[in-house]
Amino acid sequence: MKPQILIHPWKIIQDQWDPLQQRMAESLFAIGNGRMGQRANHEEDYSGETLQGSYIAGLYYPDKTKVGWWKNGYPDYFAKVLNSSNFIGIHVRIDGELLDLATATVVSEFRRELDMQHGLLTRTFTATLSNGIQVEVIATRLLSIVSDDMAAVAYQLRTDQDAQVEIEPYVDANVINEDANWESTFWEPLSQRTDKEHAVVQSKTKRLNFHLAVAMQCQLSCDAEGQSGDKAGCPSWTYTYQSTANKAVILHKYVAVLSSLNAPIDDLSQLASTQAIAAAKQGFDAIKKAHQAAWMGKWATADIVIEGDDSAQQAIRFNIFHLLQTFTGVDPRLNIGPKGFTGEKYGGSTYWDTEAYCLPFYLASSDISVAKNLLNYRFNHLPQAIANAEKLGFKKGAALYPMVTMNGEECHNEWEITFEEVHRNGAIAYAIYNYIRHSQDWHHLTEGGLDVLTGIARFWAQRVSWSKAKKSYVMLGVTGPNEYENNVNNNYYTNFMAQWSLNYAAECWSWVESHEPDAYDRLRKDLLCDGDELTIWKSVASKMYFPYDKTLGIYLQQDGFLDKVIEPASALDPKDRPINQNWSWDRILRSCYIKQADTLQGMFFFEDKTSLDSLKKHFDYYEPLTVHESSLSPCVHTVLACRLNYREQAMSLYEKTARLDLDDSNNEVHEGLHVTAMGGTWMSLVYGFGGMKILNDGLQFDPQLPEGWTRLTFPLNWRGALLTVSIDRDGVTIDNQKGNRVACHVHGQAFDLAAGQSIHQQHPVS
Amino acid sequence: MKPQILIHPWKIIQDQWDPLQQRMAESLFAIGNGRMGQRANHEEDYSGETLQGSYIAGLYYPDKTKVGWWKNGYPDYFAKVLNSSNFIGIHVRIDGELLDLATATVVSEFRRELDMQHGLLTRTFTATLSNGIQVEVIATRLLSIVSDDMAAVAYQLRTDQDAQVEIEPYVDANVINEDANWESTFWEPLSQRTDKEHAVVQSKTKRLNFHLAVAMQCQLSCDAEGQSGDKAGCPSWTYTYQSTANKAVILHKYVAVLSSLNAPIDDLSQLASTQAIAAAKQGFDAIKKAHQAAWMGKWATADIVIEGDDSAQQAIRFNIFHLLQTFTGVDPRLNIGPKGFTGEKYGGSTYWDTEAYCLPFYLASSDISVAKNLLNYRFNHLPQAIANAEKLGFKKGAALYPMVTMNGEECHNEWEITFEEVHRNGAIAYAIYNYIRHSQDWHHLTEGGLDVLTGIARFWAQRVSWSKAKKSYVMLGVTGPNEYENNVNNNYYTNFMAQWSLNYAAECWSWVESHEPDAYDRLRKDLLCDGDELTIWKSVASKMYFPYDKTLGIYLQQDGFLDKVIEPASALDPKDRPINQNWSWDRILRSCYIKQADTLQGMFFFEDKTSLDSLKKHFDYYEPLTVHESSLSPCVHTVLACRLNYREQAMSLYEKTARLDLDDSNNEVHEGLHVTAMGGTWMSLVYGFGGMKILNDGLQFDPQLPEGWTRLTFPLNWRGALLTVSIDRDGVTIDNQKGNRVACHVHGQAFDLAAGQSIHQQHPVS
Repeated sequence: MKPQILIHPWKIIQDQWDPLQQRMAESLFAIGNGRMGQRANHEEDYSGETLQGSYIAGLYYPDKTKVGWWKNGYPDYFAKVLNSSNFIGIHVRIDGELLDLATATVVSEFRRELDMQHGLLTRTFTATLSNGIQVEVIATRLLSIVSDDMAAVAYQLRTDQDAQVEIEPYVDANVINEDANWESTFWEPLSQRTDKEHAVVQSKTKRLNFHLAVAMQCQLSCDAEGQSGDKAGCPSWTYTYQSTANKAVILHKYVAVLSSLNAPIDDLSQLASTQAIAAAKQGFDAIKKAHQAAWMGKWATADIVIEGDDSAQQAIRFNIFHLLQTFTGVDPRLNIGPKGFTGEKYGGSTYWDTEAYCLPFYLASSDISVAKNLLNYRFNHLPQAIANAEKLGFKKGAALYPMVTMNGEECHNEWEITFEEVHRNGAIAYAIYNYIRHSQDWHHLTEGGLDVLTGIARFWAQRVSWSKAKKSYVMLGVTGPNEYENNVNNNYYTNFMAQWSLNYAAECWSWVESHEPDAYDRLRKDLLCDGDELTIWKSVASKMYFPYDKTLGIYLQQDGFLDKVIEPASALDPKDRPINQNWSWDRILRSCYIKQADTLQGMFFFEDKTSLDSLKKHFDYYEPLTVHESSLSPCVHTVLACRLNYREQAMSLYEKTARLDLDDSNNEVHEGLHVTAMGGTWMSLVYGFGGMKILNDGLQFDPQLPEGWTRLTFPLNWRGALLTVSIDRDGVTIDNQKGNRVACHVHGQAFDLAAGQSIHQQHPVS
Repeated sequence: MKPQILIHPWKIIQDQWDPLQQRMAESLFAIGNGRMGQRANHEEDYSGETLQGSYIAGLYYPDKTKVGWWKNGYPDYFAKVLNSSNFIGIHVRIDGELLDLATATVVSEFRRELDMQHGLLTRTFTATLSNGIQVEVIATRLLSIVSDDMAAVAYQLRTDQDAQVEIEPYVDANVINEDANWESTFWEPLSQRTDKEHAVVQSKTKRLNFHLAVAMQCQLSCDAEGQSGDKAGCPSWTYTYQSTANKAVILHKYVAVLSSLNAPIDDLSQLASTQAIAAAKQGFDAIKKAHQAAWMGKWATADIVIEGDDSAQQAIRFNIFHLLQTFTGVDPRLNIGPKGFTGEKYGGSTYWDTEAYCLPFYLASSDISVAKNLLNYRFNHLPQAIANAEKLGFKKGAALYPMVTMNGEECHNEWEITFEEVHRNGAIAYAIYNYIRHSQDWHHLTEGGLDVLTGIARFWAQRVSWSKAKKSYVMLGVTGPNEYENNVNNNYYTNFMAQWSLNYAAECWSWVESHEPDAYDRLRKDLLCDGDELTIWKSVASKMYFPYDKTLGIYLQQDGFLDKVIEPASALDPKDRPINQNWSWDRILRSCYIKQADTLQGMFFFEDKTSLDSLKKHFDYYEPLTVHESSLSPCVHTVLACRLNYREQAMSLYEKTARLDLDDSNNEVHEGLHVTAMGGTWMSLVYGFGGMKILNDGLQFDPQLPEGWTRLTFPLNWRGALLTVSIDRDGVTIDNQKGNRVACHVHGQAFDLAAGQSIHQQHPVS
């Protein structure tokens, strides 16, 4: 079943009520503001299939791990994204009957709209209750992007006849995580208070002592009797009034959500109350106006405009919208979870997805401080990464970053991933490199960058071993990005990233030595790193083994890859697809099929290290074997297909990534969205069709506009300049809106743009 | 902490009470009769650390699997050995105070004896209660090896002063499994009844509907008042009497244990009651006498006598005793669990241990029907093995036997084991070969043997794939017996067993075609097997790939083994041993260390396929890398060390296997014994020091008596003869006690013995 979503350049729209679509829609229409987010649950009661979910960034629960057979080195706990107090809830009773779309006899005029331009979620419907009364509702809500601890709901109600209406807004701390391993609850309500039109509840997590206070201040647009409700953990205020037929009444609910991450525990409830009251004084319209303006501001440096294809336009904005509302970059303790604020699956907030797939978007589309906070996040977790490596037997400050984490500690418990999918370290080093080449902020090296690179280099230098047989350093027992191979030897990508990280770390030490001698002395002392160690790194890098087949002229994904039966994925029986839902694991492992870009991922990261000819050989060999059963796969192949001028293939791969969630291609949108893959979609567009490359430290554009598109326009933060790149069927226009001079090549032609300048270069005749 | 066990040729003795030793002792002193067994729990209450455990062979519970990340093909359930109704329990109260060794102020004169010759467990002690009264207890019990649903306890009590004694025997269905995955209970008590001195309780498992009825009939040696107890699930009978100082009173408790495996559910309680009453009529002494005689009978064909070393004598009898009481061969639904009746860990009852390590003991030491029932067990499970293979994508009757099972279905959920440790299929084929060469019962092929061999051959023929690179059939993604390597390619042992199984299956079809043409026609039709298929098997076998290193002149354990850093285990820091308790899994996997015989296991199975010279090369290479962290490892190396005349090493390896549990070398005896490894101990002795070999289908003996031993004598069932082989420092005496003529070689000299004949051959001068 596909989501029934209307095409619109700025909006996600559902115009029919279908309970079977509800869980999907709750994911697709989710809203957030970087600090918190929530699924698009109904405000009023809903007894149908739903995942009630509100999530607060940075709050997590160390859920006891579920594991079949324990291995040494496994973490005891899996940090789970915390489903937190529900603050949008409103019980509505009409002549005593509960408003609930699951029990209403007729639901008509249903429309749900997510206005991505302004960050607003609106829902309208008319429901006929079993007592015959028709109720019309218009509900609008927002999570303020201006004050990220504030939310507001406007809930307008109209009955088709006079009736007694009870409307009971509440805040509810009695929430559960759907993905709790042992069906336990994570929160303990601590205190609650109601006052006229006001309620506040404070709860704490059963472990780690996170506190959360949620307060509401309500206003009703008509006179009503009021009564406080004090259900345990769920304080409320009930308005009772006699409605007049066809006359609208509006409830405004102003919410403040404060956690112990940002405020003292003892003051939490009081502060939340005060803020909710202040929000009510400000009023819904003023809050909304400021919120809309702030969203417009975010889009100004992030929007991609596709002319000529509203579906593609909607899709890219949907991807960008979720990236913007999941991470705003104001707090280095936060990161981008694979489901953002849209669901619970996978737990943890941080995977290598952040560095490999999301960072490029933030580098290009936000103030550089946003990307820098993603780097600081890893720097702040360096002690845990070192502890994690020590747990696995590594020494002397070697760091292994976790596969999945909230607080820097490893969460994941599958040996072939936890202990062996070590390539993640490479992406974290690459992020530093990528950040510096975008920002030219070399000084970052002395503010944590070099610490991280050193820990990572030390890990690689110990993780390899010398093979007498191969007279090279080999890396045994790893899992590459292609998780359809486990515990392999000499995964090309991992060895490549290790080699590169070792060289890069050594280079960065040299840079610091030359450019910041004081910092160099301090860092040498702090990190106990000397020239001998750098020599070892460079030596290991220079003697790294790579599996290569001369006949094919390609690097092999790992040792022994050619022992497999090599047949293109297109030869598979369609009923076997996706293979991860139809084949046993051993069959997948011994097959040649590739879950996601692996060898090609390395070539994607380092375009200047692979010739187009070599890229073509590798792409032609590996693409047909790739089943793209990871949301992170088609985006990389899209970019490479663009490089190789495989236009049709590029478009078909792009569609897989861009509308993955809007079309629910993997049948899992009910669990949440693939938020980190959305960064991949952005890359497909900007690096792929937009043709942006960073080659030999220089910026290049060799775009190709897909058929049917009349114009593609995207902004680009680059080394202190803000560029607008616009591609139409004739050529490329680049406008340096402000900031530094920018040198770049467009279709091979060199340009140098000062602020305020723009250039136009025609496409070559093809 | 080592068990405090006294050395005695026929007994296991503990002569001091130490609560810290209780859980260990409960395992070491466990008794059984093939149908049921139990840990050596105290009869009276015990509030200290204990694992209360009574187990009924063949009853199991499909416990919901605990798994971190689900893989397609995993079974939903793990069949658990069922902890079942406690029938030995007796509450004892002296002047109102409960007798409990954990709360007694003094415990003296404690002695626990397991008389292995007669299958009797005795325990004596004197306890001083906090009320000052001293109580002397002599408790004797047995699980009848004559009637395997009968048990009897004699519990003698003496107080040092007059006191009011309440003695309350009970049967208790309220039991739990310590290893339940989700802390659930497996049994539901159904009905219970008490009558004068009698009680019966029937319970059923919450799944699968196994029923168990346990009845007791009691007798007290003095007058007492009686009262029935009806605690739910735990009926009892309480005797109350006034004891006279220093005068002994004996309680006899006769127990019948009947399950729905062997009797109709509706009659179960009644039948159990009747049998308990009949046992009481027979009386303890008569039951004991018959039981002792039956045990003596079992020893007659199974005992190994070591003269000159009581510790070794005790150890080998301990191993044999547990093998004899775990599996008696009367029921093809039963098998030998890795912990026998001594604990719960690992669940399931059947691993490849049975075929690879235990079968040789039963072949040599019991009527051939016992071994045949182990084969029938697998034949009866063939449909499930075929279903299991189908689940993994195999076709046309291919069979993959489970790694762990109770009822033929796979239980285990670790992909690298469940799906990849497929060598188990080889051991099951080997068992048929081994059985036939011992018994000459070729007819077995038409009674199930060929069905099994065909299913297994079909599996191998599909599990290999053609490598263009190697121009051979390769087997990718397996785990060999050495579980410290996962998901490797071309494990030598697995490829070897596959090759051999394919050829052997084809040979067996030829044998049946020549010798049993009618059966041949039936089987061809039943199994849809034709000449083309046999041709494929032989072709796959002939083109099987084996990793080999020319320089070293050895087969490699798997592809890429020589990329590892090869250093002997002796170079490891002792604090890293055992590595499976100190290293993370990835570190173990990429190390060269071998958990248990792997390449060498194949050479052990097929002595006639490996020259001594080649064996020496392989042993010299692999033994130093072997950490023997499986209980199944040292035994195989012992035999090979004997072959190579590595006497000291053989003895040191033998000690690791023979006293593994008596010395609790792995610190896990509190969880139960390594029952299947005991078959390995038997092989170390008979194949190793006893020098028995089956070479080119002929029997040979080339024994070497370890230093300090003056004589080693063992019986041997061989092709319808019963031999006694006796080795002293001078030479070897073989006595054909009865049955067929036997040809054999002793120290290279050919002999041919008719029944009643014996020969003596001196050892060669060394």
